[in-house]
Amino acid sequence: MSASISPLAPKSYPDMPAVRGVRMATAAAGIKYTNRTDVLLMVFDKPAAVAGVFTKSKCPSAPVDFCRTNLPHGVARAVVVNSGNANAFTGMKGKAATALTAKSAAEAVGCSENEVYLASTGVIGEPLDASKFAGVLGDMNKTATGDFWHEAAKAIMTTDTYPKVATRTAEIGGVKITINGIAKGAGMIAPDMATMLSFVVTDADIAPAALQALLSAGVGPSFNSMTVDSDTSTSDTLMLFATGAAAADGQKRIETADDPALEGFRSALNDLLKNLAIQVARDGEGATKMLEITVTGAESDAAAKTIALSIANSPLVKTAAAGEDANWGRIVMAVGKAGEAADRDRLAIWFGDVRVAVNGERDPGYSEEAASNVMKQQDIPVRVDLGLGEGRATVWTCDLTKEYVAINGDYRS
Amino acid sequence: MSASISPLAPKSYPDMPAVRGVRMATAAAGIKYTNRTDVLLMVFDKPAAVAGVFTKSKCPSAPVDFCRTNLPHGVARAVVVNSGNANAFTGMKGKAATALTAKSAAEAVGCSENEVYLASTGVIGEPLDASKFAGVLGDMNKTATGDFWHEAAKAIMTTDTYPKVATRTAEIGGVKITINGIAKGAGMIAPDMATMLSFVVTDADIAPAALQALLSAGVGPSFNSMTVDSDTSTSDTLMLFATGAAAADGQKRIETADDPALEGFRSALNDLLKNLAIQVARDGEGATKMLEITVTGAESDAAAKTIALSIANSPLVKTAAAGEDANWGRIVMAVGKAGEAADRDRLAIWFGDVRVAVNGERDPGYSEEAASNVMKQQDIPVRVDLGLGEGRATVWTCDLTKEYVAINGDYRS
Repeated sequence: MSASISPLAPKSYPDMPAVRGVRMATAAAGIKYTNRTDVLLMVFDKPAAVAGVFTKSKCPSAPVDFCRTNLPHGVARAVVVNSGNANAFTGMKGKAATALTAKSAAEAVGCSENEVYLASTGVIGEPLDASKFAGVLGDMNKTATGDFWHEAAKAIMTTDTYPKVATRTAEIGGVKITINGIAKGAGMIAPDMATMLSFVVTDADIAPAALQALLSAGVGPSFNSMTVDSDTSTSDTLMLFATGAAAADGQKRIETADDPALEGFRSALNDLLKNLAIQVARDGEGATKMLEITVTGAESDAAAKTIALSIANSPLVKTAAAGEDANWGRIVMAVGKAGEAADRDRLAIWFGDVRVAVNGERDPGYSEEAASNVMKQQDIPVRVDLGLGEGRATVWTCDLTKEYVAINGDYRS
Repeated sequence: MSASISPLAPKSYPDMPAVRGVRMATAAAGIKYTNRTDVLLMVFDKPAAVAGVFTKSKCPSAPVDFCRTNLPHGVARAVVVNSGNANAFTGMKGKAATALTAKSAAEAVGCSENEVYLASTGVIGEPLDASKFAGVLGDMNKTATGDFWHEAAKAIMTTDTYPKVATRTAEIGGVKITINGIAKGAGMIAPDMATMLSFVVTDADIAPAALQALLSAGVGPSFNSMTVDSDTSTSDTLMLFATGAAAADGQKRIETADDPALEGFRSALNDLLKNLAIQVARDGEGATKMLEITVTGAESDAAAKTIALSIANSPLVKTAAAGEDANWGRIVMAVGKAGEAADRDRLAIWFGDVRVAVNGERDPGYSEEAASNVMKQQDIPVRVDLGLGEGRATVWTCDLTKEYVAINGDYRS
């Protein structure tokens, strides 16, 4: 946790209702931090359907390997998350640590080890002493409670400056459903942490395959459309659990993701995922500005997203945002380098509602003052129209500030 | 030009001999800067063979378009380079500016417009008033001289902190050949400049097709293996000219790039290109450290280069270098995100001669002190072995400092 809270933090936090079927507890195991919680246990008293998406890194952490192995079983009884150590690039020691944690969690909760899911965030390459928290899981299970979402979000923070929570409701076949989620972002105070973790739980009764399809589709325009610094973690983990508790109210179990009864749920889930993803971008290290970058008129949605991410990851675009500089030439540069089809002479660019470039040159009515006024806002909408097709995408990022360099560059000792 | 010179600047500059067949002059046209030269004219009194490689940007500058159109003619009589304005994203006005410049240069030198080559570096999107320098090209032609390489290198600087020159000699069929080159880098003081320009001239007699083949092959392990901030300019231009003056000494004209007589020349050219590229990286904005990143044991050379560039472009790796932090976990992250084949459990990483990781975990003999000592050096060699195949690549980059953010983010007003 950083001493100062991001200027882009939410002005208020939502009340987080309990979600039937899940209980949580946290503990301070002293893995790296002092005077704060660093372990989260989530317990599903009845087996919950589970879905997950994980980092595309070729060097994934031991917990990511562990979760991938368990996911085909499709049901979860416990989740253990620790902050302070990523258990990544830790070889056989890392595997031993996940095995010990899973065994301890299974004993604590009374389930099979393949019903346990794990996530770790923090230092890469440092062996994780899982015995530090494995011993407390039994007690945590006893005290775990449903009204604990804010505390859960706090326990998984690394250098996040605020906890990230979101809640939505929907109906499935007339039965009210709740969806709660927490996330942590790629912030780093000790300069070797960077991981996005998010856990979402609903009381809906949805089969694992359908849940996975919903999550896999939902991650594209949310977490996979958000970038802080283009550096993909070894440990990124997004999991969705469905406790099925709403079956008690008569919700008919959903077996496939194309079931028309899912319409409202899908919409609420996607909205929650997007909300959490944006909260992560708003808490990027050193962030003072939020950029929402929309690309339209591309040859395809995929091309639009590639171009939008090229803009969002450009150090020159991000430093210009930090300096409140309406430097639209750098947007041109980032479009040009993306590698996707672009016709310079059809390009148009807007900052907010101010069109700064059109037909491959500066807008005839260009006003530096008007463009600069947009850059002074905390939230800066950028739009690029390519004039080629119907493809479109929106991505979110933050600016690149001296504070980012300080957080990640000042020597750790 | 920045007020302070990069700590990575050369300790001394080489004497730059004249290259027979090329004369140069500079002028202060006041395009953007005051009290400095900003236009360079190179004149070849006899047609020189020409080769060029240009930015891959989909939004290239007007001069890049112009050069590409002329290149098939294969001969050059004049080159005009200006700093202070990139003439990029300037629409029909940009095309008119290149036409005016080419017409003026052709009149000044007495050649055809398709024997003229142009390059511009500076602000993107601002119309370039080419009349500012078009009028002085006649006078420049009259005063142009061969002993002018340092001044030429200075005239094309934007926010470079030092001029970049290099010279090499070789023999072709027993005849001594000289190769001189200048370059400018991706530095920016006014926060909207970023372009790599380089011009290399030899007195060798080499046909255009052979020259192009030499240049196209030479750019891969030199300029295309160097990155400051991953942002590709609209205007990157590297040109190689062969005046053929060595024919007077009996050098037999080279028609194809596979001519065995080129062996020494190719080696000298490649060495010069690499030297200039590294000079550019060492003058990256705000640079305090130079990283030479070598990847071995990849599935292919191309895979090795992708992974090496993933490391070199990682903001987290570059900020760690700035902080002298031996944060090898970020190297693991950058290998993992590159998308090329990698086996976590075969990875090994060295900082200098200090092996910090092996077999997918921290080296058993890891010494934080030894690794940190390497990070305190000005030049930091990083090596990653993937243990998969024979592919290898080396790339160069600089660190990411608060000064980079300041140079590119402080408001231009």
